[in-house]
Amino acid sequence: MDFGLNFFPVFAPEKKTATDYYREVIDLSALADRLGFEHVQTVEHYGSPYGGYSPDPVTLLAAVAARTERIRITTGAVIPAFTHPLKLAGKLAMLDNLSGGRLDAGFGRGFLPDEFDWFGIPMSESRRRFTEGIEACRRLWSEENVKWEGEFHSFGPVTLLPRPVQRPHPPIFVASASSPESCAAAGTAGHHLQVVPSIVSHGTLLDMLAAYRKAWADAGRSLADARIQIKYTCYLSDDRAQALAWGEKFENNYVDLMSGAIASWAATQSDAYQGYEKLIEKVQQYDFAKSLRDNKVLAGTPAQVAEQLRAIQGAYGDDLTVSLHLNAGYLPHRDAARAVELFAAEVAPGF
Amino acid sequence: MDFGLNFFPVFAPEKKTATDYYREVIDLSALADRLGFEHVQTVEHYGSPYGGYSPDPVTLLAAVAARTERIRITTGAVIPAFTHPLKLAGKLAMLDNLSGGRLDAGFGRGFLPDEFDWFGIPMSESRRRFTEGIEACRRLWSEENVKWEGEFHSFGPVTLLPRPVQRPHPPIFVASASSPESCAAAGTAGHHLQVVPSIVSHGTLLDMLAAYRKAWADAGRSLADARIQIKYTCYLSDDRAQALAWGEKFENNYVDLMSGAIASWAATQSDAYQGYEKLIEKVQQYDFAKSLRDNKVLAGTPAQVAEQLRAIQGAYGDDLTVSLHLNAGYLPHRDAARAVELFAAEVAPGF
Repeated sequence: MDFGLNFFPVFAPEKKTATDYYREVIDLSALADRLGFEHVQTVEHYGSPYGGYSPDPVTLLAAVAARTERIRITTGAVIPAFTHPLKLAGKLAMLDNLSGGRLDAGFGRGFLPDEFDWFGIPMSESRRRFTEGIEACRRLWSEENVKWEGEFHSFGPVTLLPRPVQRPHPPIFVASASSPESCAAAGTAGHHLQVVPSIVSHGTLLDMLAAYRKAWADAGRSLADARIQIKYTCYLSDDRAQALAWGEKFENNYVDLMSGAIASWAATQSDAYQGYEKLIEKVQQYDFAKSLRDNKVLAGTPAQVAEQLRAIQGAYGDDLTVSLHLNAGYLPHRDAARAVELFAAEVAPGF
Repeated sequence: MDFGLNFFPVFAPEKKTATDYYREVIDLSALADRLGFEHVQTVEHYGSPYGGYSPDPVTLLAAVAARTERIRITTGAVIPAFTHPLKLAGKLAMLDNLSGGRLDAGFGRGFLPDEFDWFGIPMSESRRRFTEGIEACRRLWSEENVKWEGEFHSFGPVTLLPRPVQRPHPPIFVASASSPESCAAAGTAGHHLQVVPSIVSHGTLLDMLAAYRKAWADAGRSLADARIQIKYTCYLSDDRAQALAWGEKFENNYVDLMSGAIASWAATQSDAYQGYEKLIEKVQQYDFAKSLRDNKVLAGTPAQVAEQLRAIQGAYGDDLTVSLHLNAGYLPHRDAARAVELFAAEVAPGF
C-alpha cells in the first residue's frame, strides 16, 4: 500500500486564518514530499466552514507544486458542474506543467444543495454535467482541434493550451462514488477511483470495489493499472489518549460543521440523490467510538493505526493508496507535522 | 516611478514548452522579488499562441506567490465574463492569503471573438458582465451574507470563504481600458488602472489619464492614492544592436501571432467594440523602428531605455508604475534574467 495526504479544511474561520492554514498545508506537503508520501490532495467547496477554505483546489495545489519535487499532486476533487470545461482543462493542464507531470485529476459530482443553488445549476443535472465535464477535459487534453457538442457546452474547434505533460492525458480519478453502479461506470471508462469509507457501509464498499475491478478487467485492462485511493481521517500520536482525544474532538467538529453545510437537504429531495435527505439524521448519530471500532476513522499510536490499516488491507485489497487526513479540524500545526513524521517513520515501513 | 514585471506568453508551443515557460516565469519572479521590483503580473487568454499558455493567471501566480516574499502579485487581468463570480472571488481571495496580502486584482473585459465564442458568451454582453463581475467580487470580499441579484448571476445570501487578507478588499485594477470614458468610470468607482500605450495613440492616452485622474479626484479621493500601471515591452542589453535585433524579431513575432488570434475580427463587427474590426489592418502595419521612436516599445542599452522612460515620465506623470515585459516572445531565459538584473542595477536607480 502507498500513502498520501488529504487536506480538507473543516473549521470555523475564527479557529485558524486561511493564511495560516495554507502555509501549514504547504509545509506539510513539503514534509510529505521529503518523507516519500505518494500524493497530496485537496477538495473543492464553497461558502461554509465545511471545506470553504478551498473554493479552488488548483490554486492551492499550484503553490504546493512550486514547493515540492516528486510527490503527486491530486485534485480530490474538482467539480466540473461549476467551471467551464475549457477553463477547467486549461488550469489543470497548467498544474500538470507546473508540477512537471505530477497531476492526478480527480473529478467530483458535488452534493451540497447550497453550492448548486449559488451557481444556479439544478442538482438534477449534476451527473450529466459531471460526465460531460470529464469527457470534455479528456478530449481537450488528448486531442487537437476539438469540436465539442455537449448537452451543456458547445465549442470549438479549439486546441487547448497548454498541452498537458502526461500523455495521452493526466490520470483521471472519479471521486467519492457511493454506489456499485457508478464505480462500475468508472471502471468501464478506464478512470481511476477515489472512495470514502466513512460515507458508505462496509458491505457497500466491498460491492463498489468488486464492481469497479470487474468493470475495469471486463474492458480488457490489466488490474495492475487500476488505481484506487481510499480516504481516512487519522489521529496519530505516541500517546494513545491524546490521539483519541483529538479524534473525539475533531470528528465531532466535522459532524457539526457538515450538519450546517447539509442542512438544506432537509428541504431538498432529488431523484438524482436518493437517500441524501437522510444524511442529516445519519450525521447526527455519529459515534466516534463505534467509528473507530469499525475502522472508519484511524486513531491511536503508530502500532494501533498500523493494525487498523492491516485490517483495511485485508478487507479491501493491497492495491490501495491510502489518503490520510492527518491535520483534521484545527489540530495545531506542530501536532500535524509530528503525525506526518511519525507515520512515515513508524507506520508506512510496515506496508 | 516603480517597476514591475509583466508576463505575456506569445510564442508557438514548439518554441518553448509550458513546463519550461512556467519555470522561467517563477525564476524571474523570484529574482525580481529579491531585486526590489514592485509587482509581477500575467494575463488570461485561451487556445492560441497569443497568450494561450495562461488560461488561468491565478494558477501560475499561486506558484509565484509560493516562491516570493514581498513582491505584489497582480492579475493583468482576469476576465469575469468567463468565470462565475463566486469562483473568481474565491480563488483571488485564496491568492491574497497565499501571498500574505500581496494581491492586486486586475479585471479585463476581454476582446477576442474566439474566446467569447468558445465560452458561449455574446460579445455584446462583455461590458455588462465585466462591470457585474467586478462589483460582485468587491461585495463578496468586503461584505458577509451577500445577496447578489445581477443581470447574469443571482445567488446568496452567502459569505465568501476564505476572507481576503486586505481590507476592505484587495486593490481593484481596471485593465487595458482604451477610452477616456472607461478610464473616467474606473476613476469614479475608485478602481486603479492598467493601461497599454501600444494599443492607443499618444493623444488618446493623455486624454485617458486626464479623465481618470479628474474622475478620481472629483469623487473626493486623494490623487496620492490612485495607482496606474503602464505596460511596455522592453528589450534590454549592454549591446544595443542585440537589443534592437531582439525587438525586431519578437515584436514581429507578437504581431504575427496576434494577427492569428484576432483574425475573426475580420468577420465580426460589434457595436460594443467600435473600430476593433480595423485591428487586423493596424496590426499588419506594425513598424518596429517607428514604434521605438514613438516610445511605444523600449529597447536598447540601460542608458537608452532610461532615456525613453524619462520621456514617458515627462509625458504621462511620475505617479506611474511601469510594468515591463522583459522576456517577450521566446527570448532565451538567460537573456531575460540578465535583462532583469541589468534593469535593477542600471535603470531603476535613476527613478
